[in-house]
Formats: sequence, C-alpha cells, structure tokens
Amino acid sequence: MAFETKAIIATFGGKLLKLSHQSTSTGTPMAVNLYLPPAALPGAKVPVLIYLSGLTCTPENCSEKGFFQAHAARRGLALVYPDTSPRGADLPGEADSWDFGAGAGFYVDATRAPWSAHYRMETYISSELPAALFSAFADTLDGERVSITGHSMGGHGALTLYLKNPGKYRSVSAFAPIANPSRCPWGEKAFSGYLGAEDREEWKKHDATELVKGWKGGDLKALVDVGTGDNFYMQGQLLPENFEKAVKEAGVEGLVLRYQPDYDHSYYFMSSFAGDHVDHAAKYLFA
Amino acid sequence: MAFETKAIIATFGGKLLKLSHQSTSTGTPMAVNLYLPPAALPGAKVPVLIYLSGLTCTPENCSEKGFFQAHAARRGLALVYPDTSPRGADLPGEADSWDFGAGAGFYVDATRAPWSAHYRMETYISSELPAALFSAFADTLDGERVSITGHSMGGHGALTLYLKNPGKYRSVSAFAPIANPSRCPWGEKAFSGYLGAEDREEWKKHDATELVKGWKGGDLKALVDVGTGDNFYMQGQLLPENFEKAVKEAGVEGLVLRYQPDYDHSYYFMSSFAGDHVDHAAKYLFA
Repeated sequence: MAFETKAIIATFGGKLLKLSHQSTSTGTPMAVNLYLPPAALPGAKVPVLIYLSGLTCTPENCSEKGFFQAHAARRGLALVYPDTSPRGADLPGEADSWDFGAGAGFYVDATRAPWSAHYRMETYISSELPAALFSAFADTLDGERVSITGHSMGGHGALTLYLKNPGKYRSVSAFAPIANPSRCPWGEKAFSGYLGAEDREEWKKHDATELVKGWKGGDLKALVDVGTGDNFYMQGQLLPENFEKAVKEAGVEGLVLRYQPDYDHSYYFMSSFAGDHVDHAAKYLFA
Repeated sequence: MAFETKAIIATFGGKLLKLSHQSTSTGTPMAVNLYLPPAALPGAKVPVLIYLSGLTCTPENCSEKGFFQAHAARRGLALVYPDTSPRGADLPGEADSWDFGAGAGFYVDATRAPWSAHYRMETYISSELPAALFSAFADTLDGERVSITGHSMGGHGALTLYLKNPGKYRSVSAFAPIANPSRCPWGEKAFSGYLGAEDREEWKKHDATELVKGWKGGDLKALVDVGTGDNFYMQGQLLPENFEKAVKEAGVEGLVLRYQPDYDHSYYFMSSFAGDHVDHAAKYLFA
C-alpha cells in the first residue's frame, strides 16, 4: 500500500519522513516515521532498526526525544518508528485508559471483540509494515537486514516479536521492557482485554519470559537496559529479573541485562543509552 | 536566594536538576533547569553554557529535545536552561498571545506598564540568575567561565546579552536568531509592548544588529546557524543577513554564519548542530 508523505524534516544529515498509510491489518490509517541516514544514497541500501514505543506514545515521541537519529546517522542505518495502536477505530472505551486501547496496543493481535477487528499490531508490525516499507523504499532499505528495539511496552514488543520469529531480526534490544506481562498489572489488564481474562495459556504465547523458555534460535543477541530509579521497575511492572531467570533456566546465552544506576523510565534514560542500542544493532546488521 | 530542587534526573552520566527560586527581578517564582555533567565532581568546578529558549518554551523543551546534555557530558560543562518569561504575574493580556507576554519575555527589561513590574528578563538572565546559581553551586560551577547560546528569540537574547556585556561571556552562539527584531513582526510587537511603540531609538539598545555596530570587544567569537528550510527565516522574521551586513560594515571579525540546507526551525535542527555549538563554547571555556 502506498505511503503518503506528510512531512520531510532534515535532521542529523539525513531525513525524517512522516508517513501515513492505510493498514489492512488494523483497518485504519497508520502513522509511521522513517529516518533515512545520510548513507541512504540512491542505490545504497541501508539496514533497518525498528523502534517500538511505549504506552501513550505516537511515532513522534521517540523521534523528538530519543536521539536515535544521531547514532543512526553515525552508523548508517535507517530507523522505523511505528505507532503504538490503531487510531480512530472508534471502539467503545478505546480512549478511556492510557494503558489500554488507543496508544496501548501491546503488539499483539487481539482475539477478543471488539478489539480483534482492529487491534492487530503483531501482524501489522511484524509483517505488513515492513513489507510495505521495503516495497515503497526498495532502493533505499535493505529488508534482509533488520533489527528491533523498543521501550517499556515496546521493549516487550521487541522481545516477543524477536522470540516468535527466529531469524527475522538480526538482534534485539529493549529499554525498561515490561518483561513478564502475565505477572504485572499493565500486562494483566492488556492481555485480559485483548486475549481474554480466562485464557492464561494463550497469554504465555505473548509473554517474553514464557517465550524464551522455548527459544531454539541460538545466541540471543539481546541487550536490555533498566534504570534502578525507574518507578515502574520498583512497582513491579517490568520484572526484568523474571526474564533473566527464565533465560538462565532455559540455558540460553547472549542476554546482556544492565541495571543503570538512578536512571528513570523517561526519554532522559533512553536518550542516554540510545547510542549503545544502535551500536548493538549495528554490530549484527553490519556483521 | 535559595533554590528548591523539584527533581533530579539521571541523564548522560550526569544529573539534570529541575530547580525553582523566587526572583527579585521578576517578583515571581522562576523555574530553571541545571545540567551537571559527570565531570562536575565535588571540588571540580566546571564551566557553564547558558541556553536561552525561544518563544513559548519553558526550561523543559530544550532539556528534552535539544541533545545538548550529550555533548555537555562529553566536554565537561554545565548547562543552564532558564525560562523565557515570568510565570503567574497575572497581568492583563499576559496569556493572550504566544509571541508576547508569558513565554515571550524577549530577554529585555520592560520599561512600559504593566510589563515593567515583572518582565525584567535581561536583569534576571544576565545578573540575578547566574549570581544565584554560582552562590548555590559554588563548589561545582565556575562563575568565571561562562558562555551563552540560544534559539530564535533566545538566539537573539544570547547575541544581545553578549554584545551588551563585553567580557561577561567567553563566546556566543545562536540557532536561527531573530537577529534584527526592530525590523521584523515578532520584534516590533515585543518591543512596542515592552519598550513603547514610539521610542525606536530605545529599541536600538536591544537589537543585535544595531548593537554590533558599536562593538569594541574584539573578535566576536560567534557561531550562528540558520536553516534554509526555516519558514520563519523565509518569512523575514530572522534577518541574519542584516546582522551579517552590520558585522561586516562595522569591521568586526569572528562571526561564523552558516546556512544549513533544508533544516527547519525546530529541535530537529537544533539537536543536529548542538554538538557544534557546545564545541564552539568549549573551545573558549577551556582555552
């Protein structure tokens, strides 16, 4: 499906494109930002790092505050900033909560009405959007070299899409991921609504801490940062320790989990370590 | 006057302090953000770069979107992000315009009622605030090594405070400054309100393009960036060409004026060149 270009913004020597397209997965228009680094010259395909945002965010938040562009320009990779849910589906209660519905799609395909008609963010992010981008920007983006990262809800989205699709992404990283959503209030609310409150076996298919138990993809190539001053970490919404324990018990190698002293849950945290996460992705994208 | 610390945020290895204090210049509480880089260890004083924001901004905008902290951490200097006007003075019409009154103090001391009672941003920025900070953070900030920069209205504020106070600042830089406010709509509105519509001779004392004609401070040590895709530049609000002409006609050396192709007026522009401006200041602060 063709993209409409809403704006082209010069930044860090490259271009940030604000795009919109009609999604067949969600049945709504979807906004997405694409950063093309200076290295994305005609005929020179660059690899791609997909960034999944957290609760309440649109493509703009991390584009403005994350400073991934500085590092993507330096390393020569493109960035894709999708939205966090369909917008304008006009479902009952869609806008009532900041942690469910609009802005809170959790990167799953909902199985429960009314959400299942539109909230199909897993299919959208893992299949439809990249296919559309790699078609529309065939001369610029290298669809064979893709990594994924994200923050909070999006950090979990990155981990789960990576774990569900061995080989699709060359590496994964996450900032303050909601690492075991089946066992925290945010995740329980989202999974109850999108997947059904009673079907906890189904939840396991969408929980990184459960998914990693069955991982057969070899070295995990995963970098995770969590701030020790993050209120949501302290409140038990993130549970990176559960993920780390599951990784160890499964005998999986290749998780680097770092606790960053005093850092919070905000873009002040993310922007501080964006360079490390871009370098992590670049290590595998340019291997 | 003592500062109240509203928040301490870990970022780029240092700390962003959200501060508030009661200003005698404005007669109101004033918010200010202070970034202390990792080099600001006990007993190790760091030099200071003051950043003046543009119309509508608070201390938060550039703290979140400017990317200066990354470079201040790298170079070992502190950043000061003042507010752009008094807040809560409750003057008639104060909040009616986005380009006059609250959020639009223009870094002058108003001479006209009712503004003159509170809108004394020149005194606040050039004297009261630094004195208060260098007293409260005497072990950390080096009040003898200060440079100044800013964006749009704040770019002009940086240029004028620098030109009015030879020797006070070691260097100056500006992003998309309103370089000749006497001759553009933004400046005419602000100066008419704060200084009086009829007194155009008074305006010259607060206009960088006029002030530089009398500059006797030697090499200007000034870096100015303007984006060629900046709508406000194209509309004649910035007039950097007038400033450059005045500099040349005055026989003043040391202005580096760069036109950055396609860049706009936003933080996408600023963040792209924040490193150059921090390096420009560091060149003189560490000379």
